[in-house]
Amino acid sequence: MRVALGVEYDGTRFSGWARQVGARTVAEVLEDALEAIALHPVSVVCAGRTDAGVHAIGQVVHFDTGASRPERAWTLGVNTRLPDDVSVRWACRPGEEFHARFSALRRHYRYVIYNHETRSPLLHARAALCHRRLDVAAMRRAASDLEGEHDFSAFRAAGCQARNPVRTVHRLAVERHGDFVLIEVCANAFLKRMVRNIAGVLLAIGGGDREGDWAGRVLATRSRVCAGVTAPPGGLYLLGVEYHSRFALPSVSPRRPLW
Amino acid sequence: MRVALGVEYDGTRFSGWARQVGARTVAEVLEDALEAIALHPVSVVCAGRTDAGVHAIGQVVHFDTGASRPERAWTLGVNTRLPDDVSVRWACRPGEEFHARFSALRRHYRYVIYNHETRSPLLHARAALCHRRLDVAAMRRAASDLEGEHDFSAFRAAGCQARNPVRTVHRLAVERHGDFVLIEVCANAFLKRMVRNIAGVLLAIGGGDREGDWAGRVLATRSRVCAGVTAPPGGLYLLGVEYHSRFALPSVSPRRPLW
Repeated sequence: MRVALGVEYDGTRFSGWARQVGARTVAEVLEDALEAIALHPVSVVCAGRTDAGVHAIGQVVHFDTGASRPERAWTLGVNTRLPDDVSVRWACRPGEEFHARFSALRRHYRYVIYNHETRSPLLHARAALCHRRLDVAAMRRAASDLEGEHDFSAFRAAGCQARNPVRTVHRLAVERHGDFVLIEVCANAFLKRMVRNIAGVLLAIGGGDREGDWAGRVLATRSRVCAGVTAPPGGLYLLGVEYHSRFALPSVSPRRPLW
Repeated sequence: MRVALGVEYDGTRFSGWARQVGARTVAEVLEDALEAIALHPVSVVCAGRTDAGVHAIGQVVHFDTGASRPERAWTLGVNTRLPDDVSVRWACRPGEEFHARFSALRRHYRYVIYNHETRSPLLHARAALCHRRLDVAAMRRAASDLEGEHDFSAFRAAGCQARNPVRTVHRLAVERHGDFVLIEVCANAFLKRMVRNIAGVLLAIGGGDREGDWAGRVLATRSRVCAGVTAPPGGLYLLGVEYHSRFALPSVSPRRPLW
């Protein structure tokens, strides 16, 4: 039987999603907890592999099990076996044809920038700090050059394993809310570090280090060596993943303000 | 010369505000950082001593120094010497008659409850988790019984050093924002653990363990032994402190949503 889970994690103390020898990863702690409930080895497939330090609110995974358990066993039961920085938010049985990665239609990420002269301890590793007042209008114009179907080779990290570097960015929005600048991006799929590399280029434009047409010019080079620095991981959140409605996946409602 | 500072901290890894031998406290790391800039011993006085695990967005402190430094030295300079979980948000010279504790007119606290069946890792140690759906209307009615000037002995912790247990609660509001329930409290001053003890009583009422008139009945006993459990520290934020406008203290604008 195939089971799908919604997973949230604070990426700060994880060496990313994928299992690595000698490193603490989300896949490893999740598989360990699921095995304690399933009582057999479990291998999870996720919708989007996140890097070290990147957070997820709506990561989606699936795994196969012969164990018959109520849905609460895969949420509350598994959560008792997970550390404080990861939890299962929902579980369902979407059918055998569901695949967390290949069935995903669109992925939604948010990059959070705290735009203030002094740093905020409560946002440490939760938002990227930018001291200089960002020109959001310039960032927004530059972002529009990246929307649509393009070869994003200039925004992929070394070691990216994707065979095809073409991705469709459905939406790349830049919004200011007081001292926060949010970069919202939705695409069919992403290359390795693509969101953080886009955020790095938009930050350079918003901070005045680069002209507004630089994002489009970097894109046209199809070469990673042209782009700016990769924005830090702590500002990045995998918000959610869209699937065909026939899978009827649950979701957790978006967050409201804390402060 | 007297200097006032606005201080923010993530209380998770601190043993509270006040210096203790062998414990990591906010006062200690702040004084150490200030001494590195002032080049003489520094002793800080704060508006509200917070417990271990309690956060502050708008703590206010003062100290005296003979060192003449630009305001940026007391913010950006001191911040380079502070750990990631505490920072100075502003600095000013309010005059010699200013006292962070005795000049304070009102303190504002917020208690954040995440009201959901499953826990949220990104809110770990940042909000109290309540699995049961809270009856906010009942909490609000109970809260109104605590507003005004009262003897709050029933809500003070053992070891509270205040001579007078009478406090004036100007406002005690309970609001739901989606899956969050916020308890907003403003008073002239607070007894030790008063907000967390109030939150504990309101949580018992909202969860259905106690009748709606229990908060008022607990208050009337003036005895701590009658009240419920103390709510956990991670949900509590010292939002800010009010002073007379003649001191012209700066403030940091309130936060907007992250998710």
